[in-house]
Amino acid sequence: MSVEPPSTPGPEVGPSAPGGTGASARPGVSRRGLLGAAGAAGVVGVGAGLVAGRQLGGPGSAVAEPAPAPDRYPFLGEHQAGIVTPAQDRLHFAAFDMVSSERADLISLLQDWTAAAARMTQGHDAGPFGATSGPYDAPPDDTGEALGLPPARLTLTFGFGPTLFRLAGQDRFGLAARQPAALQRLPHFPGDHLDPQRSDGDLCVQACADDPQVAVHAIRNLARIAMGRASLRWSQLGFGRTSSTSTSQATPRNLFGFKDGTMNLKAEEPDLLDTHVWVRPDGAADRWLAGGSYLVARRINMTIETWDRQPLREQERVIGRTKAEGAPLSGGSEFSQPDFALQGRGAQPLVAPDAHIRLVHPDQNQGAQMLRRGYNFVDGSNGLGRMDAGLFFIAYVSDPRTHYIPMQMKIARGDGMSEYLQHTGSGLFAVPPGVTPGGYLGQPLFAA
Amino acid sequence: MSVEPPSTPGPEVGPSAPGGTGASARPGVSRRGLLGAAGAAGVVGVGAGLVAGRQLGGPGSAVAEPAPAPDRYPFLGEHQAGIVTPAQDRLHFAAFDMVSSERADLISLLQDWTAAAARMTQGHDAGPFGATSGPYDAPPDDTGEALGLPPARLTLTFGFGPTLFRLAGQDRFGLAARQPAALQRLPHFPGDHLDPQRSDGDLCVQACADDPQVAVHAIRNLARIAMGRASLRWSQLGFGRTSSTSTSQATPRNLFGFKDGTMNLKAEEPDLLDTHVWVRPDGAADRWLAGGSYLVARRINMTIETWDRQPLREQERVIGRTKAEGAPLSGGSEFSQPDFALQGRGAQPLVAPDAHIRLVHPDQNQGAQMLRRGYNFVDGSNGLGRMDAGLFFIAYVSDPRTHYIPMQMKIARGDGMSEYLQHTGSGLFAVPPGVTPGGYLGQPLFAA
Repeated sequence: MSVEPPSTPGPEVGPSAPGGTGASARPGVSRRGLLGAAGAAGVVGVGAGLVAGRQLGGPGSAVAEPAPAPDRYPFLGEHQAGIVTPAQDRLHFAAFDMVSSERADLISLLQDWTAAAARMTQGHDAGPFGATSGPYDAPPDDTGEALGLPPARLTLTFGFGPTLFRLAGQDRFGLAARQPAALQRLPHFPGDHLDPQRSDGDLCVQACADDPQVAVHAIRNLARIAMGRASLRWSQLGFGRTSSTSTSQATPRNLFGFKDGTMNLKAEEPDLLDTHVWVRPDGAADRWLAGGSYLVARRINMTIETWDRQPLREQERVIGRTKAEGAPLSGGSEFSQPDFALQGRGAQPLVAPDAHIRLVHPDQNQGAQMLRRGYNFVDGSNGLGRMDAGLFFIAYVSDPRTHYIPMQMKIARGDGMSEYLQHTGSGLFAVPPGVTPGGYLGQPLFAA
Repeated sequence: MSVEPPSTPGPEVGPSAPGGTGASARPGVSRRGLLGAAGAAGVVGVGAGLVAGRQLGGPGSAVAEPAPAPDRYPFLGEHQAGIVTPAQDRLHFAAFDMVSSERADLISLLQDWTAAAARMTQGHDAGPFGATSGPYDAPPDDTGEALGLPPARLTLTFGFGPTLFRLAGQDRFGLAARQPAALQRLPHFPGDHLDPQRSDGDLCVQACADDPQVAVHAIRNLARIAMGRASLRWSQLGFGRTSSTSTSQATPRNLFGFKDGTMNLKAEEPDLLDTHVWVRPDGAADRWLAGGSYLVARRINMTIETWDRQPLREQERVIGRTKAEGAPLSGGSEFSQPDFALQGRGAQPLVAPDAHIRLVHPDQNQGAQMLRRGYNFVDGSNGLGRMDAGLFFIAYVSDPRTHYIPMQMKIARGDGMSEYLQHTGSGLFAVPPGVTPGGYLGQPLFAA
């Protein structure tokens, strides 16, 4: 099922230029025009994004040639795109606060965002006139920096923060009765050093694309559309994905130089996704979240300069895997299950007691798994000769109370890796289900 | 002429693992190994980077099919790569300060950077052991996050700031007599709001690549190598190029949504490069700069939220070009020369007196031209609901006193665009010539 953006009013030709001599009529340009028929041919149905690829298992297992990925993903669907969608290379994540206190403004914002997201994810301008063809005396309904760029597999994934439901005890938009019990500000974890200007928010948008300018363009236009109703609270760029969300993808590396996300949940595991990612509503408060998920965002600074001075032995001990292949230190290859009991010299376990892979393994966490979708970031330097760098952690879980908070508490207390980490931003958002034809983002939340 | 990195000591196999049972020998991985023969085949000679492409001229002119670009550029050459090299898509720019006061440390740093840059630009690890194959009880000589990534056309371009020659009147490294007269801190321009933590520096490195993780990896490893001799002063990521430096490239768009760099100098114009980009030494102080250039860096914030509220008419008036095609408002197509005298309604010039293209045109600047190589940036938001976004301006000029300072003074005073800009960072660096076989970066500066 593909989505057609709202029809374009009028021909995509600009108004005639002001003044007389020499200024001829200037044709407008839209991404639709530039993309043309070739673009339209790239539209694929829901599910086609889940390309078949290599199977789980180490080198030597059967490897199927992955199908070519589509150039865009459908916006409509049972779930929002950008969760199990094969992780794109670049991220722009943004959190917004409502500046209006009117429920009607919140609804109209979500409707306008729906229309713009449906357009932009398909490679079109944010609005029907586009960047260059609207009324000459009005601001354009697209900002223009994505003209000429491909859809770049853009996905836009929206979430609602706890403060949208209740702020300082106030029911701001008549939604308090529908605040899910799981949707609370994340607790303080040991070692947290959170910047309020990088944390929380009434609304969030995750823009993922293979071209960063396409992701930035999308967030910027959503911010422009929100003007007077919501304003940008914080935003974060990520330049490199740190997780695979599909077996069709190779495992990327984080700024510790290690493969990250080997054990990640994958789009090709629908039963596990049902258990660990999609919300199973348990009452009237969260019925609207059926088909949705919870998004945990954590800005995690890495002290990479300190890490880089550690011997290879220490780096591998902290992670519990080899740096080269990412195999557990207990042996095997990347996708081998670690053997936590196996001992080496001096009767010490080969995978150290505080090794990262031990603490986060489902066997050590009542079976809980997450779908991670994080990105490497570098935000310049901190004035002390160090890069402001790390991992912008994103995970989708069916319930943060069982699938994130206990594990993070354990990591913060006991993980050898925590010595090289500092959490500087945090957010929890409820991610509503996908949009149905004619509907809008979060519509079930507002239904009578 | 291609450069071979220093030979690799020892086989690229890691040390055997610690402990006994279950831990087999773990083979190391290097980018060399991963790139293999296909990578080597991609090595090209100096000058091959300057692919033939479409000629200057608007749509309708003869368009040649551009040759496929090579996957890497040579590090050695008459000039440093990364100046006239076709502008790559992503940037990581860094400035360093010397923390050692020893001339020998400065020289050894430049030698070590030369070796690492020669390796990394060819798609190899930063050091001969690589990220995973060095002594197990020593820190690796590469940080690893670029393992498995292609060379991505990485170029590394190095420069020397005024403070390397003289700081607070002190001749720090015995170089004061060789400080070129043109290498002075840029003057204060009207409206400057410079952050010292985003300005100046003893040394700079411009890393450009088509994969941002490759650019980040390069800067990080150069910072690692510098430890104890120089430390990071500031760094800046750019996600989208805003200039073409070759006729083989389409003109990209900046965050105003307009094409940027239409009139830029191009690699295919060697006579103009000789006049406007390469230094012509005029005495003993700058003889070492023959074959070099000056790099002007300016971090220019754009108030994009204000810009986005301007009518299309106003946006085009400020720039002096149409937003769609980038044609001058006096008529024609993108590459048409503007007619500044042509009048429209009410006898007003079609290109406004304070239009950006009028103020920066060579005819209005004693013929001065620049080779621009800037990048769009978004560094999150500023806590006031606005993106911290803009253009990281980079220009290469033969003399900043004639080719940058007068123009910027004029722009800062009279350009209609300045209303939407704030300069928040600044740096001027002398860029030494390219490295010859067996030599090192800046070697002529230290010659007796």
